[in-house]
Amino acid sequence: MASIFSRIIAGEIPCYKIAEDDRFFAFLDISPMKRGHTLVIPKEEKDYLFDYDDETVGGILVFAKKVAAAIRKAVPCQRIAMMVLGMEVPHAHIHLLPIDSEKDCLLSNPKLQLTPEEFTAIAESIRKNL
Amino acid sequence: MASIFSRIIAGEIPCYKIAEDDRFFAFLDISPMKRGHTLVIPKEEKDYLFDYDDETVGGILVFAKKVAAAIRKAVPCQRIAMMVLGMEVPHAHIHLLPIDSEKDCLLSNPKLQLTPEEFTAIAESIRKNL
Repeated sequence: MASIFSRIIAGEIPCYKIAEDDRFFAFLDISPMKRGHTLVIPKEEKDYLFDYDDETVGGILVFAKKVAAAIRKAVPCQRIAMMVLGMEVPHAHIHLLPIDSEKDCLLSNPKLQLTPEEFTAIAESIRKNL
Repeated sequence: MASIFSRIIAGEIPCYKIAEDDRFFAFLDISPMKRGHTLVIPKEEKDYLFDYDDETVGGILVFAKKVAAAIRKAVPCQRIAMMVLGMEVPHAHIHLLPIDSEKDCLLSNPKLQLTPEEFTAIAESIRKNL
């Protein structure tokens, strides 16, 4: 069965999309640790990031760099942290997280509850800065 | 002044080295969250990962993939998580962390206290699997 992320890419499940090219896709994390928390994924579905070929492994970070620059312009923060944990959805994904301190990266932090209007506004603001 | 990581690369400060090529360097984190916790850095010194050119941003993850494969063979774990926080040392570095669950990635977890003999044995075991 296709992963939830593959179904998002296919448009079967809605998302707040940030960017897309022929190989990669970026959208807002629906359970964000911070405003602007974004997931970057390869369109090809594999569970583990380091199982992709070198071109994809290298390419995803170059794609993520562009997305991170846009998030940093749209969301007040010191920098964009990056995390790949891989224990939740079996489709490799990079978390891009706007942070002001290391504490912002604590996975035990409560997730933000945002309205659809807030998600829409954040996504638009990031896209405008791409 | 050169960062502590640039001084490690230059051999002025000792480290438990894992791998090196012309652009990248990997060594054990001296304050590890788990056995096998490794740092991967570009030799060129910049504070923020996404300030490097695309070749370096893409290249570091391809280099990290090889190191991660060796760690995974050397250290019992489910997979290798990756984190870039960037709030400690102003020289971009990727944390490669052997994990069995997301809880292993909690930055609030106590750090391991290992002896030089333990660090040496871990580094040798990873290098053997490269």
